[in-house]
Amino acid sequence: MAASNVKVLGIQASPVVIRVLIALNVKSVAYEFIQEDMSNKSELLLKSNPVHKKIPVLIHGDKPISESLVIVQYIDETWTNGPSILPSNPHDRAIARFWAAYIDEKWFPLMSELGKAQGDEAKEEVKEKLKEALMPLEEAFVKCSKGKAFFGGDNIGYLDIALGCILGWIKTIRLILGVEIFDVAKTPGLVGWADRFLAEKTVKDAILGPEKLFEIARLRLARRDAANAN
Amino acid sequence: MAASNVKVLGIQASPVVIRVLIALNVKSVAYEFIQEDMSNKSELLLKSNPVHKKIPVLIHGDKPISESLVIVQYIDETWTNGPSILPSNPHDRAIARFWAAYIDEKWFPLMSELGKAQGDEAKEEVKEKLKEALMPLEEAFVKCSKGKAFFGGDNIGYLDIALGCILGWIKTIRLILGVEIFDVAKTPGLVGWADRFLAEKTVKDAILGPEKLFEIARLRLARRDAANAN
Repeated sequence: MAASNVKVLGIQASPVVIRVLIALNVKSVAYEFIQEDMSNKSELLLKSNPVHKKIPVLIHGDKPISESLVIVQYIDETWTNGPSILPSNPHDRAIARFWAAYIDEKWFPLMSELGKAQGDEAKEEVKEKLKEALMPLEEAFVKCSKGKAFFGGDNIGYLDIALGCILGWIKTIRLILGVEIFDVAKTPGLVGWADRFLAEKTVKDAILGPEKLFEIARLRLARRDAANAN
Repeated sequence: MAASNVKVLGIQASPVVIRVLIALNVKSVAYEFIQEDMSNKSELLLKSNPVHKKIPVLIHGDKPISESLVIVQYIDETWTNGPSILPSNPHDRAIARFWAAYIDEKWFPLMSELGKAQGDEAKEEVKEKLKEALMPLEEAFVKCSKGKAFFGGDNIGYLDIALGCILGWIKTIRLILGVEIFDVAKTPGLVGWADRFLAEKTVKDAILGPEKLFEIARLRLARRDAANAN
């Protein structure tokens, strides 16, 4: 398949975009990455996702698909020759979808809150909420992985991708804010999992290193401070 | 299959519970409905959905599954002999999942807002937002149905269930507030679709009539007024 047949519209620092890139890597699907400028969205993005005007968008042939978890399922169901991303058993699949929804509706919003929190007290409060909301995911890891390396078992799967896409930012937050979100004492399963996940080639090829994310965060904070000063 | 093998925890007035009942009816799966008291949740509910403590929960054998759209997909993937609920083509499936997420994240929250809005001006404002947010769903209906009766084509499918579960309340809101949300001039496709959907046996067996919903709404409003008066 020619690379130009599959396009991804996004920015490389976005966790939800990274989900799509990892899924394509897992399936060994070549793709063209089209960098978006979110302050000046392209015609292609506006036309491809007119409802939300958000990234990521996958364009397969001439068909656009939006919403990262919808795209990951589409990739799994379209390139069926590669390794499976969702579990094969309907019950395991339901459990994976349940936790992916939890990540998007409960956990990621707290990550965004942490980025926006002003002052030590507010940061500390969000940090505690984040850690508390991580505990069910530790339990989910123990249950889903059944003693193996990943949520998906021996190989990374749907939930690994759904949660793992944020790990670059978790490292960056540690660098910038000194905040440890993954805690060896309380979530030992996830701490080990995070190291294994980030060592996977399909992941390393998709996720920016913490230095680059640090630089992006620095620029964003500088822009925010400039905006607040005006 | 014995009825006792499949249980649904819920209340019959809840649209998200109705999704599960319709999906089971479509697959001709017998089930036991266990009425919950949401002001005094059962041990079974707390044990079955410890994360959100919400309805609906499907219990199949001894395995609980939560989140209505996750359950509907589970039902489709488990009872594969019955009619398909999700489209067979991966792209159509992605489109159906995209719009189901839109309904849950954009449209249903506005329906809840309408229920809570106090005063004519606030109600009018939410009503306008609701109608505006319905327009993309009208377009989606035209595209997905391809001139046929339902989003799913000749038979009701995933999106029909995802959106149609609210139709009992739409009728009730017309009775109570005199608000017409589905508009023959602006969303003619959805108006016709709603009538066809509500006439389906699988739906009629799952959805309460507007009189019963009217009574439930009356009691809820009375409770709210009493609480406000104290």
